[in-house]
Amino acid sequence: MEQMNIVVIGGVAAGASFAARARRLDESARITILERGPDVSFANCGLPYHIGGEIPARDVLAVQTPESLKGLLNLDVRTRTEAVGIDRANKRVEVRHLLTGTSEWLSYDKLMLAPGASPLRPNLPGIDDPRIFTLRNLQDMDRIVAASESGMRAVVIGAGFIGLEMTEQLHRKGLTVQLVELQPQVIPPLDAPMAALLESELRHNDVGLHLGDGIAHFESAETHVRCHLASGKALDADLVILSIGVKPDSELAKAAGLDLGPRGHIVVDEFQRTSDPDIYAAGDAVETLDRVLESKTAVPMGGPANRQGRVAADHIFLREKARPYPGSVGTGIVRAFEAVAGITGWSEKRLRAAGIPFATVTVNDNHHASYYPGAKPITLKILWAPETGRLLGAQASGYEGIDKRLDVLSTAIVAGMTVEDLCHLELAYAPPFGSAKDVINLAGFAACNRRDGLVAHVTELPNDPVVQVVDVRGAPLAEAFPVPGDVVNIPFPNLRASLDKLDKKRPVVTVCAFGKMSYFAARVLAQHGFDVKSFSGGIKANIDPRTPAKIPTS
Amino acid sequence: MEQMNIVVIGGVAAGASFAARARRLDESARITILERGPDVSFANCGLPYHIGGEIPARDVLAVQTPESLKGLLNLDVRTRTEAVGIDRANKRVEVRHLLTGTSEWLSYDKLMLAPGASPLRPNLPGIDDPRIFTLRNLQDMDRIVAASESGMRAVVIGAGFIGLEMTEQLHRKGLTVQLVELQPQVIPPLDAPMAALLESELRHNDVGLHLGDGIAHFESAETHVRCHLASGKALDADLVILSIGVKPDSELAKAAGLDLGPRGHIVVDEFQRTSDPDIYAAGDAVETLDRVLESKTAVPMGGPANRQGRVAADHIFLREKARPYPGSVGTGIVRAFEAVAGITGWSEKRLRAAGIPFATVTVNDNHHASYYPGAKPITLKILWAPETGRLLGAQASGYEGIDKRLDVLSTAIVAGMTVEDLCHLELAYAPPFGSAKDVINLAGFAACNRRDGLVAHVTELPNDPVVQVVDVRGAPLAEAFPVPGDVVNIPFPNLRASLDKLDKKRPVVTVCAFGKMSYFAARVLAQHGFDVKSFSGGIKANIDPRTPAKIPTS
Repeated sequence: MEQMNIVVIGGVAAGASFAARARRLDESARITILERGPDVSFANCGLPYHIGGEIPARDVLAVQTPESLKGLLNLDVRTRTEAVGIDRANKRVEVRHLLTGTSEWLSYDKLMLAPGASPLRPNLPGIDDPRIFTLRNLQDMDRIVAASESGMRAVVIGAGFIGLEMTEQLHRKGLTVQLVELQPQVIPPLDAPMAALLESELRHNDVGLHLGDGIAHFESAETHVRCHLASGKALDADLVILSIGVKPDSELAKAAGLDLGPRGHIVVDEFQRTSDPDIYAAGDAVETLDRVLESKTAVPMGGPANRQGRVAADHIFLREKARPYPGSVGTGIVRAFEAVAGITGWSEKRLRAAGIPFATVTVNDNHHASYYPGAKPITLKILWAPETGRLLGAQASGYEGIDKRLDVLSTAIVAGMTVEDLCHLELAYAPPFGSAKDVINLAGFAACNRRDGLVAHVTELPNDPVVQVVDVRGAPLAEAFPVPGDVVNIPFPNLRASLDKLDKKRPVVTVCAFGKMSYFAARVLAQHGFDVKSFSGGIKANIDPRTPAKIPTS
Repeated sequence: MEQMNIVVIGGVAAGASFAARARRLDESARITILERGPDVSFANCGLPYHIGGEIPARDVLAVQTPESLKGLLNLDVRTRTEAVGIDRANKRVEVRHLLTGTSEWLSYDKLMLAPGASPLRPNLPGIDDPRIFTLRNLQDMDRIVAASESGMRAVVIGAGFIGLEMTEQLHRKGLTVQLVELQPQVIPPLDAPMAALLESELRHNDVGLHLGDGIAHFESAETHVRCHLASGKALDADLVILSIGVKPDSELAKAAGLDLGPRGHIVVDEFQRTSDPDIYAAGDAVETLDRVLESKTAVPMGGPANRQGRVAADHIFLREKARPYPGSVGTGIVRAFEAVAGITGWSEKRLRAAGIPFATVTVNDNHHASYYPGAKPITLKILWAPETGRLLGAQASGYEGIDKRLDVLSTAIVAGMTVEDLCHLELAYAPPFGSAKDVINLAGFAACNRRDGLVAHVTELPNDPVVQVVDVRGAPLAEAFPVPGDVVNIPFPNLRASLDKLDKKRPVVTVCAFGKMSYFAARVLAQHGFDVKSFSGGIKANIDPRTPAKIPTS
C-alpha cells in the first residue's frame, strides 16, 4: 500500500481522536498534526476544575505531549504551528511557524479540519480590560489561576454549562461570585422550571444571580472592572469570566471555499467529509445532523467531537466498512455545588419555537428506594410526539442519579422508543441503586395516563375564581407551604368522604406536593363526575428543594 | 357501571400494585386483598438492610397498613387471612381466618393471584434447627434481628443476590461470616470472571468464601449449629442463613387446575391472564416471556412484579386500551461492601448452554474522566449475535456507576440495538459524571473492531511454547505483576523499534493491564505481517482491584 499523507489541523478532541484512529488503521501513513497552541490533546473539559482546585495537579490535564504521541502513535505533532491557508487545487496547506515566523507548504492526500470553536467576545466598550477572561485552553486557565485569589470579587457573564462550572469553581476557591445571564434562567437550553433547582442551589451558596439581564459595557478602574448591565445595575469585579457561548473557528475553511452553514459551521456529510472530498472536518466547528428531528444542529461537546474524528478516519481507511456518524441528540449535564441538571433531545421551548407538536409531563420521585438512607429527590420531565408517543426529549434535575436518567433517556430517544416503552424498561434495582418503579417508569406511566385520557393536566395554577383549587396534601404541609390563591385543603385520604364540599358544576384543579396525590385525587373526582385537572409536577418548587427527600404521601 | 368484585391473593409487590392501579381505574369496584401474613405492601427488598442496621427504623419498611390502604385506596385488606381454595366454576375463593380458624367463601368477578415465592429449604438432616433462617418477610427479619449479635459466627448458604446482601449486612452488624456457594463463583447468574471483583471484595472484608461447595447436612449442638459441607469441611455457626433460591407459591393455582410451567410457575398470557380468563397472576409466582430471545423465564424481582400487577389491572379496566407486558430482560445488581456487579440479558454461560451463537468482548475504563478525582475502574462485558450484531447481554463490575451502565444497556437490549449503535450513544458528559468516550462507547468500538476483523482476541493466555506472549506494559508494572509463563516484555512505545525481537513465523499474543494497549500492539504487529491476537480485558484480575483507578498507559 502506498504511504498516505494525512494532515490534521487542530490537535485536541476531534483532531487527536482522528489521528489516533488513523494510526491504528494504518501503520504506514504519514500523519502530521498542526496545533496553533503549545499543547495537544489536553483535557479541555477539566479546565474549570483546576481553577477551583478540585483537580489540584495541572499535569493530569495535559493528557499527551508531542513526544508521547510520537512514541504511542508515531504522530508528527507540530505545536505553535498555524495553518494559514489551504490550496485545494494542489492539495497543500500553508503553515506558519509561530516561534520563528517562517512559513512552508505541506502536501496532503487527506486533510482533517478540527479547529474547534472560540469563546465569543462581543465588541463592547471596555472589553479589552485584561481582567476580562475567556476559557478555552491551558493558557487561558493558567491566566485565570494567576489572576484569582480567595476573597476577590468575580463576575461570570453567561450561565450556560461553562458559566455554571466557573461559578462553582471560583466560589470553591473563595471568591464571591455574581452570575449574569441574558435569559431569565440559568442553563438556557433547559426549560425554565427545570433550571429552578440550580438557581436555588446557587442562591443557597450566596452566588448573586442577575437573570434576564445582559452586559452593556465595562468600565476599567484601577482596582476593579465595573460591569454595567442592561438593567442599569453595576457590578464591581476583580476578574470577569465571559462565558456567553462559542463560534466555530471556520475562517480557514471559508477562505478555502468550503461550504459553511448559516451560523458559520463547516458543512459535512455523514462521513464527516466537507464539500471537498479530500477534506474532512469534525468537532466544535462542524454542523451535524439532529438525531431526534430531521434538521441540522451544532453540538460543541467533547463526546461528539471524539466520535466524529473516529468516523472520519474509518471512512478514509476502512472504506466501505466505515459506518456513518448518526448525528447528535444534544445531551448535556452540569453540576452546581450539590445540585445537578441536564437535558437530552429537544426542550419544550425549542419545540414550541419550531412549531412542532408535543406533549409533556413532569414527575417527581427519589433517586433510589425512599426507605433506603440518603434518598434524594429527582424531577424528570419528558416530551413526546402526541401522535406516535415517540420520545422527543427529557430533562432532569436533582442531586444524585441525574446522569443515569439522562443516559437511559438519550438511549431511548435514539432508539425511537415511545413513552409506552418507558413503562417497561427494566432498570437495575436494589435499594441502594434505584426503585422497583424507577422515576423513568413513572414518567412512562404518567405519559400513558395522559395518552389514555385518564387525567388532564395543567402546568400553571389557574387564576380564575370559577375554578376550585383543591390542595390534597396533609394539613400541616398545606399550612406550612400554602398554595397561593383561594384554595380548599382536603387531605387526600378524606377526599372520598368530602365530595359534598365541592361544587360539581365548577371545574376543579387538584394540587399536591409532587403531582402524584393530585393525580390520584383527579381520578377519584373524575369518576364522581367532576370536570377535573391535576397540577402537573406538584408545587414542589414552592418548597425548599434542600429539605429532606421524603415524598409526603398526604 | 356495575360494581366489579375483585379479590387479590397476596398483598405485597404485585398484589398491591394491581389493587392500587385497579382503584385508580375504577372508584366503584369492590377490591379485597387477602394476605396470609400480618403485613401488606412492605418493602421486601429492604429487609437485609434493616438486619444490618443500615436502615435503622423498622417502620419505614412497613410501607402501608390496612388502615392507610383503606384511606388512600378504599381497599378492603384482610391480613392473617389465607386463601385455601378456588372454586372456579362458581367464581369464589375459600378463605380461612388464621386468628379464629373460621372459614368463608368470597365471590369474585376477577381474581388476582400474587402469592409470591418461598425460600427453598431443602430436606437435609438437621434443617429444622431453629438457628437456621430464611428471609422472606418482616417476621423472618425480626427473628434474624433477635438472633444475631455482634461477635457471633454466621454461615450464609447461597451466594446469590440475597446471600450477598445478607453477608454484607451481618458483617456490618459485627458478625463473622462464612459464605458457602455450590457454584465455583459468587452471583451464579454472572460469568465467573465478572464475579471476581466481588469475591476479592468479600475476602478483603474477611468473609470466608467456600465456593464450589454445598451444604450436606446440619448438626445441632447446644452452643452452635455445625454445617457439614459436601467437601467434608465443617463450619460452626451461631446462626445460618439459607439463601439458595426460591420456588413459586403456586399450590393454590395447581389445585385449581390452572396451567403451570415446567418449574411450577403459573402460566400467563401477555396480559397476565392465567388459563382461566377470569383469573390473573403476577409477580414471583409466574412464568414470563424473555425479552431477549424467544423463550420463557421467571424473574422473581420487585420491578417486574410491580409492573405485571399494573398490566393486569389495565387489562380488566382499560380493556382494548391495555398494553401487554413485554416480558423481562432479567436485570440484576448487587453491592457487596464497596464493590458492585450486575447483569442484564443473557450471560455467556447461559448462551453456551442453550447452544446460541454469540460473540463477546470485555473492556475496562474508569467510571468518569480519569483526571477528575475519585475515578474508579469499571469492567464491562457485552455479548452479541455474531450475524446481526444485536446485543444479547451485558455485565459490569466496579465501584461506582455500575447501575448506570446496566440501565443504558438494558434499554439498548430491549430496543434491539446493535454493538454499532453503542458506539454513538451520546451519554451525559461532564468530568464528574462520565468520559467523552464512555466505557459503553468503548465496548461498542471494541466489538466493531472485532466484527471488522481489525483484531482477534483470546480470552485465556496461551499455554503453548510456539506462541510468543508479549507483555506491552511498562517495565515497572510488568515486573511488579508479571504475566505468568514465558513472556517477553516490550513496552508499547518501544514496540515499533523492537520488531526484530519477535519471530514473524510464530504466532503472537499481546497482553497488557486492561486490554487497550494490547489491542494497539496487535494492530501494529498485524500490519507488520505478524499472526497476532490480543488478550481481551487485560490481566487486570492479577492486580489487586482495590489499587487506585489510574489506567496505566504503558
